[in-house]
Amino acid sequence: MSEKTTGRLTTRCVAMPSDTNPAGDIFGGWVLSQMDLAGGICAGQRAQSRVVTVSLERMSFIRPVKVGDILGVYTRVDEVGRTSIVVNVEAWVRRGRIGNREKVTEGKFKFVALDESGQPVLIPPESELPDYVRFQRDGAGF
Amino acid sequence: MSEKTTGRLTTRCVAMPSDTNPAGDIFGGWVLSQMDLAGGICAGQRAQSRVVTVSLERMSFIRPVKVGDILGVYTRVDEVGRTSIVVNVEAWVRRGRIGNREKVTEGKFKFVALDESGQPVLIPPESELPDYVRFQRDGAGF
Amino acid sequence: MSEKTTGRLTTRCVAMPSDTNPAGDIFGGWVLSQMDLAGGICAGQRAQSRVVTVSLERMSFIRPVKVGDILGVYTRVDEVGRTSIVVNVEAWVRRGRIGNREKVTEGKFKFVALDESGQPVLIPPESELPDYVRFQRDGAGF
Amino acid sequence: MSEKTTGRLTTRCVAMPSDTNPAGDIFGGWVLSQMDLAGGICAGQRAQSRVVTVSLERMSFIRPVKVGDILGVYTRVDEVGRTSIVVNVEAWVRRGRIGNREKVTEGKFKFVALDESGQPVLIPPESELPDYVRFQRDGAGF
Amino acid sequence: MSEKTTGRLTTRCVAMPSDTNPAGDIFGGWVLSQMDLAGGICAGQRAQSRVVTVSLERMSFIRPVKVGDILGVYTRVDEVGRTSIVVNVEAWVRRGRIGNREKVTEGKFKFVALDESGQPVLIPPESELPDYVRFQRDGAGF
Amino acid sequence: MSEKTTGRLTTRCVAMPSDTNPAGDIFGGWVLSQMDLAGGICAGQRAQSRVVTVSLERMSFIRPVKVGDILGVYTRVDEVGRTSIVVNVEAWVRRGRIGNREKVTEGKFKFVALDESGQPVLIPPESELPDYVRFQRDGAGF
Repeated sequence: MSEKTTGRLTTRCVAMPSDTNPAGDIFGGWVLSQMDLAGGICAGQRAQSRVVTVSLERMSFIRPVKVGDILGVYTRVDEVGRTSIVVNVEAWVRRGRIGNREKVTEGKFKFVALDESGQPVLIPPESELPDYVRFQRDGAGF
Repeated sequence: MSEKTTGRLTTRCVAMPSDTNPAGDIFGGWVLSQMDLAGGICAGQRAQSRVVTVSLERMSFIRPVKVGDILGVYTRVDEVGRTSIVVNVEAWVRRGRIGNREKVTEGKFKFVALDESGQPVLIPPESELPDYVRFQRDGAGF
Repeated sequence: MSEKTTGRLTTRCVAMPSDTNPAGDIFGGWVLSQMDLAGGICAGQRAQSRVVTVSLERMSFIRPVKVGDILGVYTRVDEVGRTSIVVNVEAWVRRGRIGNREKVTEGKFKFVALDESGQPVLIPPESELPDYVRFQRDGAGF
Repeated sequence: MSEKTTGRLTTRCVAMPSDTNPAGDIFGGWVLSQMDLAGGICAGQRAQSRVVTVSLERMSFIRPVKVGDILGVYTRVDEVGRTSIVVNVEAWVRRGRIGNREKVTEGKFKFVALDESGQPVLIPPESELPDYVRFQRDGAGF
Repeated sequence: MSEKTTGRLTTRCVAMPSDTNPAGDIFGGWVLSQMDLAGGICAGQRAQSRVVTVSLERMSFIRPVKVGDILGVYTRVDEVGRTSIVVNVEAWVRRGRIGNREKVTEGKFKFVALDESGQPVLIPPESELPDYVRFQRDGAGF
Repeated sequence: MSEKTTGRLTTRCVAMPSDTNPAGDIFGGWVLSQMDLAGGICAGQRAQSRVVTVSLERMSFIRPVKVGDILGVYTRVDEVGRTSIVVNVEAWVRRGRIGNREKVTEGKFKFVALDESGQPVLIPPESELPDYVRFQRDGAGF
């Protein structure tokens, strides 16, 4: 497992007590939600349209997330089909805001681009994307 | 895709407005959370211990969940390893409480059984399970 | 107090840390919410229409619900009027997912059936109900 | 139904979109939660100890609560037993913050006073209560 | 710092475990939210229209809020402009429902009155306000 | 008002329907919460300790946040005292994930650094900070 993040920082937040499971760690469903949101931002900006999650191919929970950790979710477009996009999603934490940095989950989400009537729509070529998508440094432009 | 549910009903609830995404459908992360919770109940009862989700192998979002749908999550133990359990998880809805019934998602979650110090622990043989796990009709005994 | 559940399993979920009261037990208002939701599913399926809660006749909190308990809510139609339905609602827990099973609350909720304009509407005779309402085993068909 | 509130204002908040039910009104379970909280404040201050809800005797939902309404909950001690207290609880709304004022629910909650080990404890005589309980104008001292 | 509250009681609720920060106290953002809501009620009733928060001038966090505290928010109109209103907002707690009473925060919020199309609208003279705004005792009429 | 962000991206998330106010925009209290969280991350990493918010000096709500907007919060340390830190906090949105980018709020938060017993603690000199604080590109290292 690489010590380097893959892709760019897409969402980042603090894990709060209201996100815990009965064992006192952060609930896995909350982490999945953050990954789905970040993947959706990445896919939606690549598609320049609304997207919906259609599948999740492989997802590993490597370490637990703890209350007070900063959770950062990194995304990278892995495949672009006619109307679908596969996004690699990694979640990393900074323990207790000022502790160690560790990868906690990684997975691949597949999204389909939809037009306003809910029908699949073609993904535009990369050359037609706006600058904030094409040339974005980590989180800089969002 | 089969018209029959696989496994037994494990959780069931109503999708509320506070669970929606910006497009007005139910947020996919919420559905994933319900599946993770149901899978965890199934695995925890099979292991008779605390469990943690370690991976998610294949997950398909077949149809959106809508506000007011009843969401029922069905689980079935698919594989039992020394310390791990793979659970097949399906989510079905009854549209608007009284409409059609449709499968909305399906996936396989892998859990590891942990003892109180957080170390992996052996899964007991099926013959040692309490009756409410061994002979449970759908939801009846929980 | 009977050791047997009354009616059929209607909702089932896990009590999470975000549902606690300042004393560390599960907040009574959350349990009431789950009972209201389950009663509403039962009444709505019997009425085949939208329903609203109009009163709550007797409700006993027998034992506290704890974080990590599975909460299952059972419902049974007790009385059917021209436009109203009384539902018996019981909530049971499986302590810590794999512990003992105990009744925690019971009560009777009265609902009124409404048409789309919000006016009371006649409850149909049982013979006109769809099969999933008439012949439902516990949770099986929902 | 009286046009005057009974007891004193105990809690007051705004009904938010995240508290709605699938029909778009405020979820009845949320209103019950607010009543339970307010009743618990009233009983706890009368008992000068921790209290738990043991039963709910009669509860009427008179009118729906709408998003944006201010919800004010009024409480009055109705009966004081050796270790238990019955509280009359009414909820009123100011529609959309600046519209009409209407009673929306009323009910009676019974609480039991508990000591720190969770055992029932005697309710003190009224003469021993602190001033903020004995002489409180509406909400003024809390 | 005065031991007396300024203005009238506008909202009042119990701080719950789901409102905590990772350190176990109540999250400051939640307290700010309660102050913003109460200020908005006060300004909206003075303006007799929808209002939006435009700025926050000075805000002091004096003491932490703890789980189980009753939080009461007091508001007073400080300045009335053509289309804007400055509201003084104080939050006080009753520790653990039955303990000491302390001021926890104070601040000034500025609101602008908006008509239905979202344009600033004139604040009416005080003489045109309805009685529940002009003559309100603490929380009594709301 | 500058068209450029000040400081570095500290948190980033999607505004969801459950965060709306009765008017349908995102609730101002939620935006304040996100700013408080981001400011706390910035101050805590500068102090290398736990911090608490002590005051908020100036805060402007420039434009509303809408459901579906990506909200990015930028922070920059403005002043470092013996035990306190003033952080400039700006919130920007990308409308509907793929629309325009606009500043929505800005403010200054003051934090105090605390040791484990809750007493104020000295802020370390910048030269003693770990690399992820000293040399951080936007969000890259967190």
